[in-house]
Amino acid sequence: MKKKIAVVLSGCGVYDGAEIHEATLTLLAIHQQGADYQCFAPDVKQAHVINHLTGEEMPESRNVLLESARIARGNILALSSFNASEYDAIIFPGGFGVAKNLSDYAFRGAECRVNPEVEMAVKVMVKAGKPIGALCIAPVVIARILGDVEVTIGSDQSTAADIRNMGGTHISRTHGEVAIDQRRKVVSTPCYMLNANIDQIYKGAQNTVKALLSLM
Amino acid sequence: MKKKIAVVLSGCGVYDGAEIHEATLTLLAIHQQGADYQCFAPDVKQAHVINHLTGEEMPESRNVLLESARIARGNILALSSFNASEYDAIIFPGGFGVAKNLSDYAFRGAECRVNPEVEMAVKVMVKAGKPIGALCIAPVVIARILGDVEVTIGSDQSTAADIRNMGGTHISRTHGEVAIDQRRKVVSTPCYMLNANIDQIYKGAQNTVKALLSLM
Repeated sequence: MKKKIAVVLSGCGVYDGAEIHEATLTLLAIHQQGADYQCFAPDVKQAHVINHLTGEEMPESRNVLLESARIARGNILALSSFNASEYDAIIFPGGFGVAKNLSDYAFRGAECRVNPEVEMAVKVMVKAGKPIGALCIAPVVIARILGDVEVTIGSDQSTAADIRNMGGTHISRTHGEVAIDQRRKVVSTPCYMLNANIDQIYKGAQNTVKALLSLM
Repeated sequence: MKKKIAVVLSGCGVYDGAEIHEATLTLLAIHQQGADYQCFAPDVKQAHVINHLTGEEMPESRNVLLESARIARGNILALSSFNASEYDAIIFPGGFGVAKNLSDYAFRGAECRVNPEVEMAVKVMVKAGKPIGALCIAPVVIARILGDVEVTIGSDQSTAADIRNMGGTHISRTHGEVAIDQRRKVVSTPCYMLNANIDQIYKGAQNTVKALLSLM
């Protein structure tokens, strides 16, 4: 039986949704290592829509599930239907969508609230002893949910301080490297939290998936 | 000096824009083979916006350059500014955006019109003896521009007939394989024109970039 990994997306585009390279290369890494994936996203409104050329907010409204469906080629489920018993691991690619749509970390920092479906999905996987992967800024949300957990977001001191304020421990890591919390079974990697190029993102995704498979 | 490849995007999402996996994995393949890339897209309105969960049209309007910027993380230029002398090759990932925004092939078939900036970019590269790559449905647009050219879109008989009607020759290819027109220096691969999975898309992108580099 192939291992099955749930991939939670947060929109489509680094500045208001899931980071597209991180999401796509996570899917590639899962397939290449002999596992299968199912994409999920919460069926909620995006915090806002960003013009990715100028960085400015646009007078539009978009839905996280519908935009995430672009990355998943339509094969995506609402996160409300996530059933932990059907999956061997769950993984969160990064992008500002994690800090704007899956949580409000981008607006409230260490005091952020997490989308209840995301919180539930993480907690039920932890309870089942199943591993969790988090790329880029996503480890912050895992720290907000679990508190006492070891993660990396690379080396940004301000974000690392927020993780400590949430009760977590920050481990510095560089391009492609992972931090593994063996006790909580949480694997994280910096990706575009560092000034990375796309083949470094690929290495980070590959190493995250490899570590997740080894923790099953 | 690193070889530099122009990547022309057509939006962001398979049903109304650039296919995200094909675009991302093209960028990855370029980096992995020691070359560099610059993304471009025409600054025009999308033909329409498709709900990627249901396949239905949405009452919205989006811009091809702005949506393509999501895949490029903001690092993208308007195709009107494309200068062939600065690039060693040009490559077109697929997705319905190629058949809806870069041309109207999705609506008019073999009689389609091609965006004038796309047509100019392809013709000037051919004139300069520089290679052109085309994934998925994009070879159809190359055939429409060049007429007498050998390309593959996989094995779909109806699309192959359209290519012949445009004056081109269709070569059947399967997952990850490329067709190479040595005379016109055009490299094409089927990608999601076949019922493919993401690691087959990666192979197709890798082999296309490899062939482009060998034709320089």
